[in-house]
Amino acid sequence: MFTNRFEESLDFFVDVYGLTESGRDADSVYLRAFDDYEFHSLKLTRSKTTGVGHVAYRTSSKAALDRRVAAIEAMGCGIGWTEGDMGHGPAYRFRDPDGHVFELYWETVVFEPPSGEAPAIKNIAQRYHGRGACPRRLDHVNLLAVDVRAIKAFMVEALGSRVTEEILLDNGRLGGCWFTVNNKGYDIAYAEEHTGTPGRFHHVTYVTDQREDVLRAADIFLENGIHIETGPHKHAIQQTFFLYVYEPAGNRVEIANAGARLILRPDWPTITWTEAERKKGQAWGLKTIESFHTHGTPPIENAGGHHSGDER
Amino acid sequence: MFTNRFEESLDFFVDVYGLTESGRDADSVYLRAFDDYEFHSLKLTRSKTTGVGHVAYRTSSKAALDRRVAAIEAMGCGIGWTEGDMGHGPAYRFRDPDGHVFELYWETVVFEPPSGEAPAIKNIAQRYHGRGACPRRLDHVNLLAVDVRAIKAFMVEALGSRVTEEILLDNGRLGGCWFTVNNKGYDIAYAEEHTGTPGRFHHVTYVTDQREDVLRAADIFLENGIHIETGPHKHAIQQTFFLYVYEPAGNRVEIANAGARLILRPDWPTITWTEAERKKGQAWGLKTIESFHTHGTPPIENAGGHHSGDER
Amino acid sequence: MFTNRFEESLDFFVDVYGLTESGRDADSVYLRAFDDYEFHSLKLTRSKTTGVGHVAYRTSSKAALDRRVAAIEAMGCGIGWTEGDMGHGPAYRFRDPDGHVFELYWETVVFEPPSGEAPAIKNIAQRYHGRGACPRRLDHVNLLAVDVRAIKAFMVEALGSRVTEEILLDNGRLGGCWFTVNNKGYDIAYAEEHTGTPGRFHHVTYVTDQREDVLRAADIFLENGIHIETGPHKHAIQQTFFLYVYEPAGNRVEIANAGARLILRPDWPTITWTEAERKKGQAWGLKTIESFHTHGTPPIENAGGHHSGDER
Amino acid sequence: MFTNRFEESLDFFVDVYGLTESGRDADSVYLRAFDDYEFHSLKLTRSKTTGVGHVAYRTSSKAALDRRVAAIEAMGCGIGWTEGDMGHGPAYRFRDPDGHVFELYWETVVFEPPSGEAPAIKNIAQRYHGRGACPRRLDHVNLLAVDVRAIKAFMVEALGSRVTEEILLDNGRLGGCWFTVNNKGYDIAYAEEHTGTPGRFHHVTYVTDQREDVLRAADIFLENGIHIETGPHKHAIQQTFFLYVYEPAGNRVEIANAGARLILRPDWPTITWTEAERKKGQAWGLKTIESFHTHGTPPIENAGGHHSGDER
Repeated sequence: MFTNRFEESLDFFVDVYGLTESGRDADSVYLRAFDDYEFHSLKLTRSKTTGVGHVAYRTSSKAALDRRVAAIEAMGCGIGWTEGDMGHGPAYRFRDPDGHVFELYWETVVFEPPSGEAPAIKNIAQRYHGRGACPRRLDHVNLLAVDVRAIKAFMVEALGSRVTEEILLDNGRLGGCWFTVNNKGYDIAYAEEHTGTPGRFHHVTYVTDQREDVLRAADIFLENGIHIETGPHKHAIQQTFFLYVYEPAGNRVEIANAGARLILRPDWPTITWTEAERKKGQAWGLKTIESFHTHGTPPIENAGGHHSGDER
Repeated sequence: MFTNRFEESLDFFVDVYGLTESGRDADSVYLRAFDDYEFHSLKLTRSKTTGVGHVAYRTSSKAALDRRVAAIEAMGCGIGWTEGDMGHGPAYRFRDPDGHVFELYWETVVFEPPSGEAPAIKNIAQRYHGRGACPRRLDHVNLLAVDVRAIKAFMVEALGSRVTEEILLDNGRLGGCWFTVNNKGYDIAYAEEHTGTPGRFHHVTYVTDQREDVLRAADIFLENGIHIETGPHKHAIQQTFFLYVYEPAGNRVEIANAGARLILRPDWPTITWTEAERKKGQAWGLKTIESFHTHGTPPIENAGGHHSGDER
Repeated sequence: MFTNRFEESLDFFVDVYGLTESGRDADSVYLRAFDDYEFHSLKLTRSKTTGVGHVAYRTSSKAALDRRVAAIEAMGCGIGWTEGDMGHGPAYRFRDPDGHVFELYWETVVFEPPSGEAPAIKNIAQRYHGRGACPRRLDHVNLLAVDVRAIKAFMVEALGSRVTEEILLDNGRLGGCWFTVNNKGYDIAYAEEHTGTPGRFHHVTYVTDQREDVLRAADIFLENGIHIETGPHKHAIQQTFFLYVYEPAGNRVEIANAGARLILRPDWPTITWTEAERKKGQAWGLKTIESFHTHGTPPIENAGGHHSGDER
Repeated sequence: MFTNRFEESLDFFVDVYGLTESGRDADSVYLRAFDDYEFHSLKLTRSKTTGVGHVAYRTSSKAALDRRVAAIEAMGCGIGWTEGDMGHGPAYRFRDPDGHVFELYWETVVFEPPSGEAPAIKNIAQRYHGRGACPRRLDHVNLLAVDVRAIKAFMVEALGSRVTEEILLDNGRLGGCWFTVNNKGYDIAYAEEHTGTPGRFHHVTYVTDQREDVLRAADIFLENGIHIETGPHKHAIQQTFFLYVYEPAGNRVEIANAGARLILRPDWPTITWTEAERKKGQAWGLKTIESFHTHGTPPIENAGGHHSGDER
């Protein structure tokens, strides 16, 4: 994630949102939630702008990585291999149809808690430190795309994702689409970009164990002067209990809870929502706030010369 | 699940625990939680005794079913095919090393909510009816086995399960073992049977969305005269927030919450607990109640002529 | 409370909201929450219209009743004594400056749970039945008044209430005022009536033990087709976690949670909110829904010949 | 509260339990919860031992203070006036029949939040800082007494307290007694001291808004190496959701939640529990841990020359 207010964004993610720093280099700090098993789940990078540099997936095995790379190369959208990063080994880069950069890797750096951060119970990655909103783990990212239908076909072919839910607009376009490669309802989602600007970022989400943690987070955001965009409330789609804020540089960040809902059905049929259904608002009747359909990062006014990807 | 107090057990599961009846035949009622996608997740059967008749898994595909059947037949523990049941199609039966009967099937009956039970939001299986403890879905079963180490080898080979956690006793035996075939921490667990009696049942667990639902369930059990064995508290192993009761016929039933904890690491290493660690008690210090190590169904005194499996 | 859809309203209050019927006569059903200690806390009455017939307070002693009656008679707004009701003894009636009828009484009928409703733990009034939203107890009522400033002076003098919070509009009028006679933040509140119609009702509120109960209630209302007006969210004023619905006849009903907040300071100074502060919306930024300022019962179109009070 | 491990106790109360320091002098730090309206609610004092120096009540008015002092002087147990403390004005001291020192005062120092601690919403005392367990406010203290029946008579006469619940042992003695001067179920409780040693302290309790906060506190205590004695569970008596720990010097500290339960009945009859009822354990069946009946501070072995009161 890029930020043009690096120190403020870092303070937000560590002291208010409750992630932990596991490493840093010249331009980036590597962050993780207390039960993320990898070295990092969010790389915050000093930049002239905001938005997302890339999204990375760890594959389920070395063989799975090879299969994915072969599929993506056959699709003609590969970029090539990088040597990896502080938190993982060699990664294969590619672009989605909207220009967002992705990485796939198998070799990872498993988090080893430093002294004072070891958990009291050894089956979680790090102690529950209780600082800030303190979510448990990375859950998903949400990206904007000019053509969500193209994304739908792409993700299924490139990553083998399942499409769990989607919004079918009256004009035949997809307003949004939710994908998963595991038993969660989604690990990535896309929403339609209305401005024609490619490569933008909608939000990143970490999850808490309980909805009460989301309500508590609302008080923490409020008391720390963080802009709350909307929530807490429950989405109709995926039934996620949500709360959206803008971190100091303007990137949208969610803290959420999914309860015990999982996609345990192997032949789960995609749930298709109509435009009329979407207009009903969220699960308990909250009208979707207008900015949720328009705010993305980087902002459009700065996006003239924007090229998605790590080149900041 | 067998019960020798059929009407009382049924009242418990429907009105107190909060499952819904989706069908019945001469000897059994088919029950499900509100977001179980299949016709049923618990078949309650009138019997002379208690315990479990069989445990069934739906495979991830028809091909997966064929692979598992081939593996199990090669292991020499298969029983053969049945025509299925009210809730699913043809099933392949086999026995674990302790004599418990299992089934595997692919063809299932997806639950279609009758009038009045359709959910307000169409991405869950049935409306949240709010009756009784009202858990969301089946989570796991726990069986007793004389030789848990034999089970550990068996489940990995027969079902392709991963071993997420285990208890290694000082005498070299396994005191317990937790298995999963998906991203949950476990879908089945085994605990050591100290009496030498094979085929016994420890408990079945449905999960709630929130820990508060478990606390609320405690009041519901209390007010309905249901015996609470232990909890609510948090297990150290798997960190599940648990509450155990005995349904009227004596089968142990749990209602639990796992928060946002999932096994998302594909190369998750088995967590091994020592006997000393187990003696420390549960996560927040509660000593494990003695009956948790001894109570199983059917009771030993009735188990003389017991043969596990559906022959009741 | 009056309803012109008596059966539907009663179904709502018993099966969805979770009150219990403790008695009935020709036109009314007497309802109570599980831990209300009195025979009833809500009298639902068949009527041609909606709104509130009267609001009743039990005094803290017989002597206190006498003192209040003397004070009210001196103020010239008394109506006189009634013989009481199924749930309480003789009551003294009076009108607030907006015409709402009030009663004061000391002798009450303490609820004696019938067979099957006795609590498992004897220090609460009735068992936790868990039906519907199942709030614990009556918390407060909220009335509309054309002149809230007149109400402010009145309640302090007539009931000895403390004013805990208020909204001071830029035009010098009071937009709302919150009163208490005990350690709760408020037992009655008034909001400004913009139509000039006196005697209208804004809402009645029962409270739950936990915020999770309010979130759960939202699902119960949703699944039962009850109109959710706004929430769940947290009020800035009084910091109550709220959820407002319309019962089938249109009366607004709230279910709420106040956490551990109490007014324990004997010299609590009134918190005064400006119009600008109110415009900021609720605690976490939710904009106050327009209907919250306009919807009251009975509706204005039916209110032409309306006389507040029990004459329905 | 006295501590012979001052720095460790202070670290516990500030960083783990989540109180805030509002002042200090040579031997004491003044602490408060975020919504306590007074300067302090806990004075932690460096000492050779542990236990409680005195318990202080603010009266409801200056006149009430005068009435209480007159009553206490008439009872012959008064000590006399002190000039007050950093947090309040002149205080009248007296002893309960077990020798514990009490103070009564009217003039207080209302907390004024320093820069950075002002709440986002102005109707609470300090911002919700979210540090540690972060309870909302002081709730009650619990003292040990050799003769609880003498205490029962004393508190009613000296403070005008109401007796809300009590334990009547088979031998005719009182095992415990709960008192209140407001709408809470209790502000002070006494349990029988079995050793004959007078003046000991059982625990102090702050409350959270939600039970989830208590569960979360359990994780925080666990991760910080704080000894958890028992809980979380629900007491049968008062139905408080409790969690007891020992602060580093050994004083027992509770964090609790009472839900929406209040004593709103002015003629509340004392609930009397028999010894048999107490033996049933806590609300959901947890057996009361033995140390709960024996552990008090200061420990008995150090108590030989102990004189209760501030002389440390």
